[in-house]
Amino acid sequence: MLIIGERLNSTRKSVGEAVKARDTQFVREEAVRQAEAGAHFLDCNAAVVGVEAEPEALVWLVETCQEATGLPCAIDSPNSAALEAALKVHKGQAVINSITAEREKFARILPLVTEHQAKVVALCMGDEGIPQTAQARIQAAEFLMENLTAAGVMPDQIYLDPLVYPVSTNSHAGLDVLETIRHIHATHPGVHTICGLSNVSYGLPARKNLNRAFLVLCMGAGLDAVIADPLDEALMALVYASEALLDRDEYCANYLSLARQGKL
Amino acid sequence: MLIIGERLNSTRKSVGEAVKARDTQFVREEAVRQAEAGAHFLDCNAAVVGVEAEPEALVWLVETCQEATGLPCAIDSPNSAALEAALKVHKGQAVINSITAEREKFARILPLVTEHQAKVVALCMGDEGIPQTAQARIQAAEFLMENLTAAGVMPDQIYLDPLVYPVSTNSHAGLDVLETIRHIHATHPGVHTICGLSNVSYGLPARKNLNRAFLVLCMGAGLDAVIADPLDEALMALVYASEALLDRDEYCANYLSLARQGKL
Repeated sequence: MLIIGERLNSTRKSVGEAVKARDTQFVREEAVRQAEAGAHFLDCNAAVVGVEAEPEALVWLVETCQEATGLPCAIDSPNSAALEAALKVHKGQAVINSITAEREKFARILPLVTEHQAKVVALCMGDEGIPQTAQARIQAAEFLMENLTAAGVMPDQIYLDPLVYPVSTNSHAGLDVLETIRHIHATHPGVHTICGLSNVSYGLPARKNLNRAFLVLCMGAGLDAVIADPLDEALMALVYASEALLDRDEYCANYLSLARQGKL
Repeated sequence: MLIIGERLNSTRKSVGEAVKARDTQFVREEAVRQAEAGAHFLDCNAAVVGVEAEPEALVWLVETCQEATGLPCAIDSPNSAALEAALKVHKGQAVINSITAEREKFARILPLVTEHQAKVVALCMGDEGIPQTAQARIQAAEFLMENLTAAGVMPDQIYLDPLVYPVSTNSHAGLDVLETIRHIHATHPGVHTICGLSNVSYGLPARKNLNRAFLVLCMGAGLDAVIADPLDEALMALVYASEALLDRDEYCANYLSLARQGKL
């Protein structure tokens, strides 16, 4: 399971303030904590500073994270100039978060993916707007797979995100995502699926239970990457348990190792 | 989700001692705690006393549970005499735990199911012994469905148990169970599936993580009943969360109600 640590997102108040103030110590600490908790990539979002200032802020955020941890980043912006600036300074293979099936955005972000040979999170959303059904998500996924691979992006560099919406407003929202994940893996072997979790529980109490259960359900449908908070120890324990249960952890070796380290 | 509280099983040392000593207070307390924690049925197993003494012990256990809680019981024994004695005193509709596809056992237990119009846990195991594959489980399930319904047992009174074995000894054991559950619900609408959880984690550390994740994975495959410890609050919270996420809790009403009661 690929874990992208979600915490350095400037829409979180403390992170937004740290980005504005260029608080290196805060960012280093958040980055190191996520790395130590098992993140493989660190999501970096600096959008709070506004479009004009974002390239410089995102470069600072990415460089600070990489200096602190050596981990690669998921560079999180809809702003091509900010993405490009951050990709130029990024060391190793980055994740671009994200491209979509919206035609204008797709055409604008695609050259960054191919030029930097980045991995890419591809949101299953087209010009029709927010997908309301599994079918709409699958349609967007088909567009993305066809056009990304036509441009030379290998399936195993693509992380399709079915887009998670709250079950509080649409009781079928969880099932739609699970159906989309199953369909993608059945029809496109080698491609990855990813999602952010927290949207699913929006508007409900005791949200962590819902986020944790949803991650396990998504893994059961085939999900192999997630944008999540690796400091949620119960969540991470469920991820490692699910990998053992789904025959994705040979001889349960990783589960046993984490247990010995007292991490479960 | 139907929850059968598993705690009053005489293979547990403290319960075995209580059964031998006819410790009414111990049993009442365990029964009430499980009822308050959300159990719909209470599993009653008195096998520790030996075949001869079991009917009387099981009658005592079932009567003590029902007097304490008013809940129906899952009467847990391979011993027809003990089952029959307990069914005679049981108030309301019991669960018989269990019948199997072993021909001799099936023939011996079936009359108790039909005579007492009980629900029945049907283990997916035939005369070939412990099933090693999903296919062997499905074959036993087909025998059970065909022969139970031929005897007049309605599908919604049947709880097929795919039999859970440790992933520590067979890395495919979890996937086999999930495949069996999906197959049963796809081919026999209206029938229920059930499993015990704890076997899946046998031989591994941090077992509760594995049991919790496995229950969520099974629910994602369609599982609608479980024999589990309702006092595991994290487990129960994941059950209620999964029901909301799988569109099995209209308007998330039960989830919201439990949150208001401080149970999540």
